[in-house]
Amino acid sequence: MAPVHSPKAPAKPAANPQEGNGHSANGNGAEQFYSVGQSPLRVDARDKVTGQTQYADDLHFTGLLHGAIRCSDHPHAKVLSIDTSAAEAMEGVEAVLTAKDIPGENQIGIIFNDQPLLCDGHARWYGERIAVVAARDPRVARRAVAAIKVEYEPLPGAFSPEEALADGAPKIHESNILDTMHVRRGDTEKGFAECDVVIENIYRVNYQEHAYLETQGCVVVPGYGGSMTIHTSCQCPFYVQKGVKTILGKQASQIRVLQSPTGGAFGGKEDYPTEPAACAALLAWATGKPVKMIYQREDDVEWSSKRHRMAIYHRIGASKDGTIKAVHLKVLEDVGAYGGLSTVVADRANISSIGPYNVENIHVDTYCVYTNNLFGGAFRGFGAPQVTFAHESAMDKLAGELTMDPIALRKKNGFREGDTMASGQPIPGRVPLIESIDDATTLANWEARRAEYDAHNATNPLVRKGLGAAAIIYGVNLHAGGEYINRSGAHMRINEDGSVNISIGLTEMGQGLLTAAVQMAAEALGISHELVYCNQIDTALVPDSGPTVASRATIMSGFPLVDAAKKLRRTLFHRAGEMLNMPADDFDLANGKFFSKKKGLSAGALLDYMDVVGACFAKRENLTEVGWYRTPDQPWDKATGQGIAYHSFAFATQIADVEINTASGQIDVKNFYCAHDVGRAINPNMVTGQIEGGVVQGMGWGIMEELHLREGKALNPGFTDYLIPTSLDAPKIHVKLLEDPTVAGPFGIKGIGEPSLIPAASALANAISHATDHHFTELPITPERVLMALAGVDQKMLEPAVSMSW
Amino acid sequence: MAPVHSPKAPAKPAANPQEGNGHSANGNGAEQFYSVGQSPLRVDARDKVTGQTQYADDLHFTGLLHGAIRCSDHPHAKVLSIDTSAAEAMEGVEAVLTAKDIPGENQIGIIFNDQPLLCDGHARWYGERIAVVAARDPRVARRAVAAIKVEYEPLPGAFSPEEALADGAPKIHESNILDTMHVRRGDTEKGFAECDVVIENIYRVNYQEHAYLETQGCVVVPGYGGSMTIHTSCQCPFYVQKGVKTILGKQASQIRVLQSPTGGAFGGKEDYPTEPAACAALLAWATGKPVKMIYQREDDVEWSSKRHRMAIYHRIGASKDGTIKAVHLKVLEDVGAYGGLSTVVADRANISSIGPYNVENIHVDTYCVYTNNLFGGAFRGFGAPQVTFAHESAMDKLAGELTMDPIALRKKNGFREGDTMASGQPIPGRVPLIESIDDATTLANWEARRAEYDAHNATNPLVRKGLGAAAIIYGVNLHAGGEYINRSGAHMRINEDGSVNISIGLTEMGQGLLTAAVQMAAEALGISHELVYCNQIDTALVPDSGPTVASRATIMSGFPLVDAAKKLRRTLFHRAGEMLNMPADDFDLANGKFFSKKKGLSAGALLDYMDVVGACFAKRENLTEVGWYRTPDQPWDKATGQGIAYHSFAFATQIADVEINTASGQIDVKNFYCAHDVGRAINPNMVTGQIEGGVVQGMGWGIMEELHLREGKALNPGFTDYLIPTSLDAPKIHVKLLEDPTVAGPFGIKGIGEPSLIPAASALANAISHATDHHFTELPITPERVLMALAGVDQKMLEPAVSMSW
Repeated sequence: MAPVHSPKAPAKPAANPQEGNGHSANGNGAEQFYSVGQSPLRVDARDKVTGQTQYADDLHFTGLLHGAIRCSDHPHAKVLSIDTSAAEAMEGVEAVLTAKDIPGENQIGIIFNDQPLLCDGHARWYGERIAVVAARDPRVARRAVAAIKVEYEPLPGAFSPEEALADGAPKIHESNILDTMHVRRGDTEKGFAECDVVIENIYRVNYQEHAYLETQGCVVVPGYGGSMTIHTSCQCPFYVQKGVKTILGKQASQIRVLQSPTGGAFGGKEDYPTEPAACAALLAWATGKPVKMIYQREDDVEWSSKRHRMAIYHRIGASKDGTIKAVHLKVLEDVGAYGGLSTVVADRANISSIGPYNVENIHVDTYCVYTNNLFGGAFRGFGAPQVTFAHESAMDKLAGELTMDPIALRKKNGFREGDTMASGQPIPGRVPLIESIDDATTLANWEARRAEYDAHNATNPLVRKGLGAAAIIYGVNLHAGGEYINRSGAHMRINEDGSVNISIGLTEMGQGLLTAAVQMAAEALGISHELVYCNQIDTALVPDSGPTVASRATIMSGFPLVDAAKKLRRTLFHRAGEMLNMPADDFDLANGKFFSKKKGLSAGALLDYMDVVGACFAKRENLTEVGWYRTPDQPWDKATGQGIAYHSFAFATQIADVEINTASGQIDVKNFYCAHDVGRAINPNMVTGQIEGGVVQGMGWGIMEELHLREGKALNPGFTDYLIPTSLDAPKIHVKLLEDPTVAGPFGIKGIGEPSLIPAASALANAISHATDHHFTELPITPERVLMALAGVDQKMLEPAVSMSW
Repeated sequence: MAPVHSPKAPAKPAANPQEGNGHSANGNGAEQFYSVGQSPLRVDARDKVTGQTQYADDLHFTGLLHGAIRCSDHPHAKVLSIDTSAAEAMEGVEAVLTAKDIPGENQIGIIFNDQPLLCDGHARWYGERIAVVAARDPRVARRAVAAIKVEYEPLPGAFSPEEALADGAPKIHESNILDTMHVRRGDTEKGFAECDVVIENIYRVNYQEHAYLETQGCVVVPGYGGSMTIHTSCQCPFYVQKGVKTILGKQASQIRVLQSPTGGAFGGKEDYPTEPAACAALLAWATGKPVKMIYQREDDVEWSSKRHRMAIYHRIGASKDGTIKAVHLKVLEDVGAYGGLSTVVADRANISSIGPYNVENIHVDTYCVYTNNLFGGAFRGFGAPQVTFAHESAMDKLAGELTMDPIALRKKNGFREGDTMASGQPIPGRVPLIESIDDATTLANWEARRAEYDAHNATNPLVRKGLGAAAIIYGVNLHAGGEYINRSGAHMRINEDGSVNISIGLTEMGQGLLTAAVQMAAEALGISHELVYCNQIDTALVPDSGPTVASRATIMSGFPLVDAAKKLRRTLFHRAGEMLNMPADDFDLANGKFFSKKKGLSAGALLDYMDVVGACFAKRENLTEVGWYRTPDQPWDKATGQGIAYHSFAFATQIADVEINTASGQIDVKNFYCAHDVGRAINPNMVTGQIEGGVVQGMGWGIMEELHLREGKALNPGFTDYLIPTSLDAPKIHVKLLEDPTVAGPFGIKGIGEPSLIPAASALANAISHATDHHFTELPITPERVLMALAGVDQKMLEPAVSMSW
């Protein structure tokens, strides 16, 4: 896909006063990187492509049982009785458990205590778990759950935020509003009064299924001292540990979670894996036997979280010269039946809803609303893609009204050095937004191609062409309020043969973290990455390092690795000093060579790494260290959305190039031009791969993937009718990496997992709008919706049953 | 079994200048222990007795293959050709490998590079591995190894050290003498010249099979980045790691070894598990699939190491008053075909051969001699039981010649405070040998019972009664020369709920280490042991901590745990200081309560443990630490056996009480009276259990277990004809624990694993001698041998084919 890398990572280190920065740990005089910035092959590539990888379902144990789950038959109902006798009587069934059998607390909510593991009498959606079964044969387990007889009293349901907020709406919880967020800056009334143009739209976006290749799955093995070892496909082993401990009433120390190789996650394995793991652990506890729980694809789609459906009521105004004067927004998030991570998703949506633009007057209200639908959760982008679709669509619409080029409008208002975020915080460091816009438009040959397409479209009614852009600011790492879990540990050990084992608390889920961690560890210690091996991710190996989300994994692995390396270097330098009768603090180590810090590596190597390791082992010195990192605090005023939302920001611009067949509505995505500020690319090939994956996944959400619900239940829970992009659908993706090192990341890195996806659907929507000359306000823009738009038919598919005022 | 504990562990801490001592880490003013000295249930007891424990053979993986090994058909031969074609052609066989297929170095010797993993053309014993096979079905694998055609040129063999040392003996290696050890003190010629009585005997002891319930077994699973994860029943995961890394030519970082729950070991799983693991790893490497290797019992007995067969040429002389003047010894150790651990076994035998007695003039030569027999290795006692049989039998014989009571002779010569070991080192600390002799004789009511039995035997020819004693000095931990691996690490982590995970590098093999580690960690940190969980033993979790041998596991786990706890306490005290505005260094923590060190706990608790942990988590402080410990150096002169053999010494006396049927030769062991100096008992019940187990295993070796060889091949490799004691054979065992805390152990502990066994067979032999009035010079003293002795028939069963001069 012809990635265009910026040539060599710039060697200039960011000045970094913070303890634990990559530069100061490496600190070699030459200021050169040896592993960072290289693109070695992913350490797990060979095993995955040859089929050697052992996933959770590949693990077996003597006496293994198989778990199955019985869910509700109604989207909203009282459960009057549960009769498990027929299931219990089945040959091979070893346990049938309901809420009454839970030894700990029947509570699985990750933030709010609003969700029972097993139904407490009130079924709030189709995915409500009534009972769990363990049997020796998985088919028997599934037959047994079907044999459980449940008596219900059906209740009326609410299937959109608007319905749930209406007067007299069914009460899903004590209140149907889970939480609200706001941004208040300036005076929007005054701002709109000063505008020459005001546009107003309601943008609606549908769910997205994560569509990881490996479904949710785990095996729970009872161990000594009442312990449980859990092998699970997941992003956040510490979440699973905490959830299972609560359900079983055990200590954290007794629950060990090993992340089995994870075949895709994308946020879908952030909080959700706790649910099957807790079910399996409950069955393992009750039977004293290992229990495996592997979801079928249909169950996985129906039961696990999705990208949130949202409605964004959007009003934006500008003066004639294109200066944005005010933005007023209402964001409605369809939480589903249980809170899950919806409020933190809404936090990011709330603060990202203005885009990367200077706006003086801002009024945003974000509502997290319970419904009887399947539930929204974490998904790559975490609320940002939804609001980005609104602000970037509105920007193109506004440009149209102002008869400005959409790029020019963005550059007019876009953030520059010294500007201030919607949260009122000055954006730290350099602000390469305009650089990313320029790089993307250069890659795309924007002006010439826009003109060419306009000319083409004027004379070619069957095949229309479009070029659309979207720009973003991305707050790296966890939003304010999340910093209480924003710390991480790592272990680093030098073995007698000089090889190094590292352990980190963040997870590999296909993004290449194991490889990036190996490269960072090698760079921080000063040796070849070929000597470093990263252990499987395992709660026994490292302290709770929080979740692998928010594009934070490389940062939160890198910093404690740098810290551990620094401690090891101290020991090595001390030993080298004794060997050469030199002061320990004059040593540096890079690329396996010890040299004088004062004189630099060019003055010659003094000792080999292996010599010093050998000397340490001869003295029986400890060469194992724990590294630690915590982010700075993030003061935050929830009522106004003002404070330190994030500590570093990444910028990106993506431009989509499409061709549309007006007879079939078919959208052929030809090219994507992407310019991403990544801070620094640890492994440029992998960073490019992330961007390619993000674009294609964003494209799926934007134009292909559509989950149909009836009364909150998925009607197309499988890949025959829920269509995800294949390799053949992927466009050519042209990537430019901008490297603007930040002090908030080791070696200056920012995140890339989420920003790679966030603008994609919006750029596509703008390209389709350009091609069709129609402003689309709903995603996905399927061929059917293109045809309706071209035919002038109203798009009602996602309209709320109850309309809503501002 | 009515153990008699000394009441409460003495609270007085040993003065310990050394960093990392248990007392100074705990250091609470009350000098009281809360977990140490208690006897909580073993943490793994429930799972073992309910059958939940998942041993290596209980693990399964997708695509799992089963390994099998083809060994030599001759005890000594050149291998001319190996034809694997028939095996390869068999349905389901996925790999047939010989030496040429090894990607690394074909070398598995633990100390000497004398042993190939797969035969290098010279088969030196029946257990020589010719080829390995992996197949989908274990029965097919076994049929396939049988189908391998091997062409040999048989060579003459040597089947005893005497044969191997004779002129013109077959050359097993370059030299048939692997190594020699010596002790030289004083002038034995002069010493013997001053003697009134000199006695001379050749003592011979036979092999002992470890007879663990779980045979050798492992599963090797290929992982990412060329790594291998090995689940194995073993004592020393770091040995397995090193061996497999060598065979596969990989880095230590790529080889991860998890100790699967181990169903007995006793030394038999010290070095040996590397051999099946390396075979399985080789097959896993070649096939890219998981490979399981579980030994059948017969293979296990035939192929794995045994307690060494030894011949001890023994001369001892004393003056009329019982003062021992000189000892001259030649110890011949039958190494078998490969060195293994034989030299370090011989080190312990060499220096232990004098017993716990002051002798001015000592001459010991110990020879490690290669033969074509199965090979000797580590076994609880590690060379000491063999020489103890010699010196303790000789003591009784000498007492007889001097017409002294055997106890009186021992007390006359026994070590007291300030005395000097055979190695010339002053015995450090208190020397409670005489105390142990007194305690054991008191328990046994020695004088009255000896007199009673003498009277009984004089009038009762059918049933004879005997009471025999043996006393020992036991050097705790590794012998001089082994200190290069005498260091260990541990990790300790406090979780958010206050529960604590610890990781140690020593292994649980039935002795109760997990439980002892939990108790020590709790005591060192100052919390309840119910909050502490010890992770599975795993090379990924901790740095190389050496082998679980030499009764060192509790010491080498405890010291680094204390060190890690000290670091955690520093963080907790700092936080407590901030909370109460008090200096951090005035805090102490015991039993979950923070209190002022100056004022003591009796002045009242200032904070709860959980309050301070919560405050640390709120501040996102690191609560994970690595602890480290290394033993002091042990200077040693090999030529004279003079230096620091060990840093601490344990003392024990055991007295056996037997009844012998002179018609059947049947030996009924009625009672054992044991007084052991253990330094301090972490868990008195478990320490007593160790002593009970040691006595019964020593009894098996002494009177029941006899491995018959023909040309070095075991003729009775199974439990139908190799008889081990059952519960019904066990005597009543009366235990007195002496607690003499040492600075060389955390909380003052010494080892108990080995000293519990070492005197048992010797005490029994002396009791049988007492009953039969016959001096036995060979073990085991089976009923047949008792009958022969009573009939005046010479015991020739273990006689060498070639006799040997001094």
